[in-house]
Amino acid sequence: MQMNFNRPHRRFNPLNGQWVLVSPHRAQRPWQGQVEKTAAANLPAYDPTCYLCPGNRRNQGADNPKYTGPYVFDNDFPALLPPEPGEEPTDHALFRAEPETGVCRVVCFSPRHDLTLPEMALEDVEAVIRTWSAQTAELGARPEIGYVQVFENKGAVMGCSNPHPHSQIWATGQVPNEPAVEAVQQAAYHQRTGGCLLCDVTAEERARGERVVAQNEHFTAFVPFWAVWPFEVLVTSNAHVTSLPQLSAEQVRGLADVFRQVTIRYDNLFEVSFPYSMGFHQEPFDGQAYPGWHFHAHFYPPLLRSATVRKFMVGFEMLGMPQRDLTAETAAQRLREVSGVHYKQR
Amino acid sequence: MQMNFNRPHRRFNPLNGQWVLVSPHRAQRPWQGQVEKTAAANLPAYDPTCYLCPGNRRNQGADNPKYTGPYVFDNDFPALLPPEPGEEPTDHALFRAEPETGVCRVVCFSPRHDLTLPEMALEDVEAVIRTWSAQTAELGARPEIGYVQVFENKGAVMGCSNPHPHSQIWATGQVPNEPAVEAVQQAAYHQRTGGCLLCDVTAEERARGERVVAQNEHFTAFVPFWAVWPFEVLVTSNAHVTSLPQLSAEQVRGLADVFRQVTIRYDNLFEVSFPYSMGFHQEPFDGQAYPGWHFHAHFYPPLLRSATVRKFMVGFEMLGMPQRDLTAETAAQRLREVSGVHYKQR
Ligand SMILES: O=P(O)(O)O[C@H]1O[C@H](CO)[C@@H](O)[C@H](O)[C@H]1O
Ligand SMILES: O=P(O)(O)O[C@H]1O[C@H](CO)[C@@H](O)[C@H](O)[C@H]1O
Repeated sequence: MQMNFNRPHRRFNPLNGQWVLVSPHRAQRPWQGQVEKTAAANLPAYDPTCYLCPGNRRNQGADNPKYTGPYVFDNDFPALLPPEPGEEPTDHALFRAEPETGVCRVVCFSPRHDLTLPEMALEDVEAVIRTWSAQTAELGARPEIGYVQVFENKGAVMGCSNPHPHSQIWATGQVPNEPAVEAVQQAAYHQRTGGCLLCDVTAEERARGERVVAQNEHFTAFVPFWAVWPFEVLVTSNAHVTSLPQLSAEQVRGLADVFRQVTIRYDNLFEVSFPYSMGFHQEPFDGQAYPGWHFHAHFYPPLLRSATVRKFMVGFEMLGMPQRDLTAETAAQRLREVSGVHYKQR
Repeated sequence: MQMNFNRPHRRFNPLNGQWVLVSPHRAQRPWQGQVEKTAAANLPAYDPTCYLCPGNRRNQGADNPKYTGPYVFDNDFPALLPPEPGEEPTDHALFRAEPETGVCRVVCFSPRHDLTLPEMALEDVEAVIRTWSAQTAELGARPEIGYVQVFENKGAVMGCSNPHPHSQIWATGQVPNEPAVEAVQQAAYHQRTGGCLLCDVTAEERARGERVVAQNEHFTAFVPFWAVWPFEVLVTSNAHVTSLPQLSAEQVRGLADVFRQVTIRYDNLFEVSFPYSMGFHQEPFDGQAYPGWHFHAHFYPPLLRSATVRKFMVGFEMLGMPQRDLTAETAAQRLREVSGVHYKQR
């Protein structure tokens, strides 16, 4: 007898070494809990009260220029600050703390208050990626920076406090937990097999096709076998590259295309601006060796069954392990089945 | 020069081996994002439409008895199912999956639709703990069960779909991620020092007092040095015990008292029924040795500044590491400063 993927099972994530519980039979349980507000359907192209729109005043008094493309500025409420000389870690075995250093920036995608990534033209998405790449190169070159995290929180349900489409960059002195554990797993795979974990996974997913959502010559987007969030997607480069600044102009275009394909399908799934947290995992800049490190992006979207019913990662998930109610294969199929043209542009 | 805890720093959690970023200077940033609904202030003692109230019909057709104390039943939509003979794990190195087996139960605290733990009498909370304990013993004794997770999701914001106060038990064949990693960390500490990590932490917290929220002869509740959630609390037994069934009658009473103290202070903080996920980490029942395993409960509450403004664990938190905006010491002080009498009962 074989594995029955229609019964409860767990799947292993080789990128972070964690298990996820899959309960496919549970997808149809009724939901009487919290429903989310959906995003406003029609935003203006310019909002005079928005602190991210061009020409407007920000919360802390600075004025935005009349920018015309992607626009970068230092976060007015940064979680990280420049180093202060002389600070030292605690030395208690049970209460270990260390100073942390860094830079927090905001990257507006464009002057348009109303255009999210899936609604932007390919060239404009390319311009955003080039901006992320230039920022990564600039911050990564600083001696006090060890890691550059580029991410987007999209939608109020994902803690985003301003609907003007934007992303953030938090660059830290030390490598945070998630990339640190991926580094260990990728290095172990490299050590064990001589190959690259995500090169092998990408080739296998492209060959099988059942979990692929979008692809082109340079990038592949798929619901990973071990996905936690209902419609989680992993985007990997087909070739072995390690960070944004390494991408050729062709690869930047390929990434922009795959990003558009994924986010258009997301929006079409429930005909709503689909919330998520998205971010890149790039090779750290701390001068250590990262054998087997493969550039990739994670999309973590919370919606489960509709524009208003999300998956809650609570209780068993926080104390035990993540749990999901539909298989990765079903999620990928549903994303493939929706139109590749954005519902607002049909 | 020393560590300056008013500047950005990171703290290490020796129980799970992860770091948390602390940005104390950021607590005052304005919030323009999502606001949560608050729980209904006055629920009826009995709700004829509630599928958990005594005598009512449940979603799937079963009828609840006219129960008078804690009431346990099998979850009508279980994420886990009994074993099916003959199922086998996959054997692909990149796509590892295994069948998972288990039992999901619901534990109503009492017939009262309107009484949460902090509003219940001490003896009634004791009865709930005795029920959790008996369930743990019964399920843990089954040969197919390796671990018993008792937890409560409280409040709609924590994915709870029925306001009738209740908790859940998910018992699994295999040990889930979180207790598995705590087992490794506790065993490593025991190996290194010969002692018990949480015995040592508890003694140190009791001696220092600055992070303690509630305590008695048998249990201690404190905001751990490495807390992630704004008002996270760890509850540990003062003596070295490993699971609920081991607790003496005196210890059960001590735990009930500390639970009431913590949850009353939670409710008083913003004068609202304070949402959280709470759960016990007990020694696994899979027959392996767990040196240094110490019984404890985690409270993970999302609220940050008010009854309606929560902390979002998104973006940097999902892709990098958890981040918090106030220190553990400040959180503990605020919980100590509010009244120990429930605001509804004053
Ligand atoms: O079991 P419930 O209350 O229907 O569901 C809730 O708790 C479960 C266990 O933590 C989670 O998997 C669900 O996402 C959550 O909504
Ligand atoms: O920086 P923002 O958009 O104000 O805040 C949002 O993103 C941050 C980084 O993921 C999180 O720490 C906050 O909890 C979230 O609300």
